[in-house]
Amino acid sequence: MIEPPATDRFLRACRREPVDRTPVWFMRQAGRYLPEYRRARGDLDILETCRHPEVVVELTLQPLRRMPLDAAIVFSDIMVPLRAIGLPVRVAPGTGPVLEEPIRSEADVLRLRPLEPEADEPELLEAIRLLRGELSVPLIGFSGAPFTLASYLVEGSPSRDHARTKALLHGAPDVWAGLMERLATLCVAHLRAQVEAGAQAVQLFDSWVGALDPEDYERAVLPYSREVFRGIADLGVPAIHFGVGTGELLSLMARAGGDVIGVDWRVPLDVAWERVGSDRGVQGNLDPAVCLATWEAVREKALGVLRRAGGRPGHVFNLGHGVLPQTSPETLARLVDLVHEATERPSG
Amino acid sequence: MIEPPATDRFLRACRREPVDRTPVWFMRQAGRYLPEYRRARGDLDILETCRHPEVVVELTLQPLRRMPLDAAIVFSDIMVPLRAIGLPVRVAPGTGPVLEEPIRSEADVLRLRPLEPEADEPELLEAIRLLRGELSVPLIGFSGAPFTLASYLVEGSPSRDHARTKALLHGAPDVWAGLMERLATLCVAHLRAQVEAGAQAVQLFDSWVGALDPEDYERAVLPYSREVFRGIADLGVPAIHFGVGTGELLSLMARAGGDVIGVDWRVPLDVAWERVGSDRGVQGNLDPAVCLATWEAVREKALGVLRRAGGRPGHVFNLGHGVLPQTSPETLARLVDLVHEATERPSG
Repeated sequence: MIEPPATDRFLRACRREPVDRTPVWFMRQAGRYLPEYRRARGDLDILETCRHPEVVVELTLQPLRRMPLDAAIVFSDIMVPLRAIGLPVRVAPGTGPVLEEPIRSEADVLRLRPLEPEADEPELLEAIRLLRGELSVPLIGFSGAPFTLASYLVEGSPSRDHARTKALLHGAPDVWAGLMERLATLCVAHLRAQVEAGAQAVQLFDSWVGALDPEDYERAVLPYSREVFRGIADLGVPAIHFGVGTGELLSLMARAGGDVIGVDWRVPLDVAWERVGSDRGVQGNLDPAVCLATWEAVREKALGVLRRAGGRPGHVFNLGHGVLPQTSPETLARLVDLVHEATERPSG
Repeated sequence: MIEPPATDRFLRACRREPVDRTPVWFMRQAGRYLPEYRRARGDLDILETCRHPEVVVELTLQPLRRMPLDAAIVFSDIMVPLRAIGLPVRVAPGTGPVLEEPIRSEADVLRLRPLEPEADEPELLEAIRLLRGELSVPLIGFSGAPFTLASYLVEGSPSRDHARTKALLHGAPDVWAGLMERLATLCVAHLRAQVEAGAQAVQLFDSWVGALDPEDYERAVLPYSREVFRGIADLGVPAIHFGVGTGELLSLMARAGGDVIGVDWRVPLDVAWERVGSDRGVQGNLDPAVCLATWEAVREKALGVLRRAGGRPGHVFNLGHGVLPQTSPETLARLVDLVHEATERPSG
């Protein structure tokens, strides 16, 4: 029995091809839960950190030195392209993205100029090029989705209820459309540049879209997310479409696009897959908070996810959201091994 | 045509009996969106406010003076019974409940003594007695549900990911069971006393239970919520069972109990009702953030909710969560009229 290179596993699963083991990676696998990450990051603002390619490379590689993950994700932040076009965004530690002058009018929308990746975010692209020389597993590039970016721009800071965003979406549909149109164009440029620099898959993070009802999603978000997926389709790399609290939106998200739909833990994986459709893969969906409990609990819940995936081609194991900072790296490493061992398939 | 007294409408709907108009009330209808509320509350801590029956009466009545709501809900806070048994809870403005010494061990759980409502929270009961003399619509009493109370007690402050709560639930099931058992007993005592003082319906707020997957809900929450509903069943008052982000939990919540299941806006009302079952009523489910948009948007979305309710007996119109502080009282008043007008049924 010759084991195929691990490098293959993640991309094959994204294409719903048979794999030797279910691939695993973790959202925020390069993150604060790693002591070496905290040391390397120091007190630097995350957007500042992202402008140092050698640091980005180091942070991206750190989790891979600890555990046999099946994919790397470039260390970056969804605000990077917005800062790159000159918006005075900063990411407040413990709070999240803050924009002193939020975008709420047509005039504000006009402040969003097109992204020219090679000129505006050369450090990200340089980091991706460097990483391709270092990695033996596929590299994932990513972007925030138009809605999630819009919600930060409109609120001006992280929001629980997304009230101003919804007020704009309902109260000024033209301004909303203009904003989403520009953001979709920006996402396409941002993702294309990452793929051209070497990213072998992409993930669109529509993290906060679960705040919407299906009707609003379909009308005010779906067309723009679809534009993003269409805008990168010719590149031929797998695309993952992720959101949190999206139980009622899964079939619409699949309609918007993505080879693989990421789901949080609220929807059992088999139920999610049914909503997404059998022509797509699914990514997920262990509750990240479970990783703070005992290993027995982690093991039981992870095996439950795998049972629901049922060994069907097209499952990428992941958490349902990012790794929590309190997580023990040892737990994650055991989890990677568990998923690999529990899903090992005989190969010829 | 003689209009039946409004007083009847809400209770009839809770029992799935025909009504002359769909009843309306709003979670947090007595709240910060009202200038008279802000004046009456001043800077007083909310738990302190709750200890002044005459203020509670005033705050409860305020929204009813502005709009023809079909029910009143006693002004209180889910932390009231916990403070009443001596826990040093305070509610930080803009943050929420804070407990300096969170409950995370068996010894901590033993600090939770039984609630003796007449001795521990006489002001609440006095306010309810006074209110019954003032009101021409039914009065709703309420309690936080065991899980939502537990999440505040375990986290020590409001939490986005409920990580410590889940770690306890998974990692120390015995401690968890002891905590939930005590909280269920406390909820029963708290609700029974309110009904005995005059509340004509109750709502159990399991606001944060949507953070759980269905499996965890069924194992670690459902038995205790069921205990609460069973513990008040003999009183014969309608019970509403509410949570946010509960799309995947609705049928389990119905199994736990409640004549009416409250749903947020993420699930279309007809879909929610299917999951809940036709032997229950449903309450909801306009997105509170929509109320910040134009009246046209509010109107369209509210009529959408009514369309999905389809005139079936058992719908109580409400928002999908509490009124946002930025809401205009005029918008809510128009919304009450809209619901009443749009659902008027000929009566003999």
